[in-house]
Parts: sequence; structure tokens; C-alpha cells
Amino acid sequence: MCDSKVNVYHNMREKGISLPPPSAPAGLYSLGIVTSGKLLFSSGKGWTEKGTPPVRGRLGVALGIEQGKEAARKSMLCLLANIEQVIGDLNRIKRVVKITGYISSSEEFHDQTKVLDGASQVLIDVFGENAERCARSAVGVNALPMDMPVEIEAVLELI
Amino acid sequence: MCDSKVNVYHNMREKGISLPPPSAPAGLYSLGIVTSGKLLFSSGKGWTEKGTPPVRGRLGVALGIEQGKEAARKSMLCLLANIEQVIGDLNRIKRVVKITGYISSSEEFHDQTKVLDGASQVLIDVFGENAERCARSAVGVNALPMDMPVEIEAVLELI
Amino acid sequence: MCDSKVNVYHNMREKGISLPPPSAPAGLYSLGIVTSGKLLFSSGKGWTEKGTPPVRGRLGVALGIEQGKEAARKSMLCLLANIEQVIGDLNRIKRVVKITGYISSSEEFHDQTKVLDGASQVLIDVFGENAERCARSAVGVNALPMDMPVEIEAVLELI
Repeated sequence: MCDSKVNVYHNMREKGISLPPPSAPAGLYSLGIVTSGKLLFSSGKGWTEKGTPPVRGRLGVALGIEQGKEAARKSMLCLLANIEQVIGDLNRIKRVVKITGYISSSEEFHDQTKVLDGASQVLIDVFGENAERCARSAVGVNALPMDMPVEIEAVLELI
Repeated sequence: MCDSKVNVYHNMREKGISLPPPSAPAGLYSLGIVTSGKLLFSSGKGWTEKGTPPVRGRLGVALGIEQGKEAARKSMLCLLANIEQVIGDLNRIKRVVKITGYISSSEEFHDQTKVLDGASQVLIDVFGENAERCARSAVGVNALPMDMPVEIEAVLELI
Repeated sequence: MCDSKVNVYHNMREKGISLPPPSAPAGLYSLGIVTSGKLLFSSGKGWTEKGTPPVRGRLGVALGIEQGKEAARKSMLCLLANIEQVIGDLNRIKRVVKITGYISSSEEFHDQTKVLDGASQVLIDVFGENAERCARSAVGVNALPMDMPVEIEAVLELI
């Protein structure tokens, strides 16, 4: 990260954060994380365990804000696990450039930003306060793959 | 911009365009505009004044195309204001690479491209005809944060 | 592509793939494909013929998975035709970095990844197995321009 003193794994131990096992991608693609120059582009990733979403449904229908934040948090941990599998060491991440959160929502649910804060908090815990400065889009959608409540994608800059 | 004779602020005066005050981001991130190399990635931004959307609702339900175009226009001005705050001078923008417009829509509304033209017109007015050549995605969604009708994000190339 | 022996047009002949004529963009932008450094960003593109979508409607409402896959396949061919028009030769593409597929869906449809496989298969057929490794996001939305069932955008790396 920008702050060169940060050690990601030290932060994670301090915050009690551990990554889940990396997951296999769904569909006809085998990796889902691509770097081009210094930029890393991720696939969209939701919270799955052994390929299955532990929580399904839409915000404002089956799920409330706290459940959505937890899904966003877990989605980000799953995404970081996949990124770590590809780049080997999360300390290679210089900067979180952008995250986009697709939040499965009813037409009346408009707190997508609060839900996505669950993912942003993970980034701050892992990468330090600088991660707060990333670009972010929070969008409501009416349906996500496997009825997942949250799907997150990221653009990162590597060292 | 590509056309090196363009002065963005001259264009804005000529077209009667002025930027609103930059807005604070919603949620756990403090900047919302990140540059990596020559690329600038923005957060998704809608039309807000002092943190509140002056117009709410979905295209095809509460709002018609002209109201949507105006919301897209104002969203782009808000986004440019935030970008100017971070990079200091909009003349540093060499090229508009990509904009994505999320348009809050009923299931029967399919004129998302016409709505997003409100934002593209701002880019042409400010940056000149070259801005017409940017990549663009217009997508309908069923819900946006704060019930905003339009959310726009951009990728720009800096000089 | 990564595999330097690949000739894209040889692959296309072998797989019986031909590109449609490039289409004009909808809305206030005249190109829709922008390169910045080695990265190419595309506009969102659906399956159109002479500006009109041959198939309309949503997955889970008017359309089933196989119809959606075919729309995704045709959308990707339309997108490649537009990219070829701009860069001249698809062999200039070194790597498919990312594709995003917006799938027009009912609230109960959750097989967006299967639909988007129709586009991924084109990439594998044209660019070889390495294309399988691109980053990908599949998202359901409630409405797309012109009632198209699928809209696809791409980030590519050029040689």
C-alpha cells in the first residue's frame, strides 16, 4: 500500500481477519484475476463456501442492512483469497484503485452504500486507512448469480 | 484533450456551464477519485446538492426521458467537480476513456442511451467533439443509492 | 494472445466463426472503442443487426438459458466486429483482461454465469484457451437499452 510500513498480514492478525480458501470460478473461465501492466482486474465475486452461497436473497426483501454488510464483508474476503492465490502475497498490492459492488435489491431499497461499507471496512482493516481513498461504485440490481446478495469486483495497482 | 488547443474553462464559459461545489462521498471512503499511472478511475456519482438528491425515482415510473437526461447532465457536472477537486485542473484530462451510466429504470423502460446522452453532451461541451469518441455503457438497474435516478462513473486518461 | 502462435483468423475459419458488419453506436458518441496505453476499453454492446436487436426480452421471462447464451455469443461477435474496425487486426489483441456481462433478468433468474458462457466460448474459440483466464463479471439487471437481453463490455490488452 501507499504507506510502505504496512504489512498486510500483520494487520490481518491484529484485526482477527483470516482469508477463506480460494474458490473455483463459476463458468467458462479458469482464473478470474488478470494483471496488465501494474493494474490487476478481478472477476465479480460473491460470498461462497465450497461453491455455494451461505446466504441468498435480496436486500429489502429477504435481507436487512446488517446481513448485507456481512455478505459484502465475506465477499471481499473471498475476493482477496482469490487475488492472493494469483499474486502470491497481498503485500504486492500498492493501492486499491476501484471497487464496484452490485447489491441485489428490491426496488425500494436504497442503502447500497451502507451495505458496501462492509467490504470497504475489510480493505481499511487489511490495507490501512489509505484504502479508504479508493474509488467506489455501489449499484442496486434485481438479480445476481446463484441468488447471491452481493457481488464485488476490484481494480488494484500492484507494486 | 486530444485537441491541444482546447481550454476546458474557456469551453465552459462559452457554453454557460459552471461546476457545483464538490460533494463529500457517501460511505467509508474519503476521496473517491484515484489515479494509477495515467488512468483516473472515479467513484459512481449521482446528482446531489449538499448530500441530497434533488430528484429521486426511476425512469419509466416517476421520471420521463427529459428529467432523466437532466439528472445525467447534473450527475456528470457533480462528477467533474469532484475530479477537479482532486486533479486541480480539468485541462489535465487528455481523453475521456469510458463512462458507465447506471439508469434507475422500470422493467419496461429501454431508453437508457437517451438518458445517458445528457452526460455525454456535457463531455462534448466541456472537452470538445473528441469527447464524443469515448467508450460508453448504459445499463438499466432497479435501484440506486438514495433513490437517485442516475449514477455515472468514468475512466479518464490524464496528460 | 499470450500464445504467440495463435492466428485469430485461422481460429475463426476453423471454428466456422465470421464477424457481422460493425454497427454504429447508439447515442451521442461516435466510436465507442478507446485505447489508452496498451489497454482498450469498449462500450457496452448487445446483439443488433442493422441497429435493431433480433431478440428482445429478459431471461426468466421471455427467454430461456439457451436463447440467452446465443444472445451473449452474438453480442460478443458484434463487439469483436467493432473492435476490429478500430484496431484493424484482432491479432493485435494480446490478452482479454476483463469482460462484464449485464444480463436482463427476472428477479428469480440466477443463471447469469451460464448465459455469459456464450460470450466466453467465443473468446476461447477465437483467441485460444488462454482467453479462458480472463476476469469476468456476470450481473443481472432489470432492463437494458432497446430491451436487449445481454450487453457486454470488455477491457483488452493490446500488443
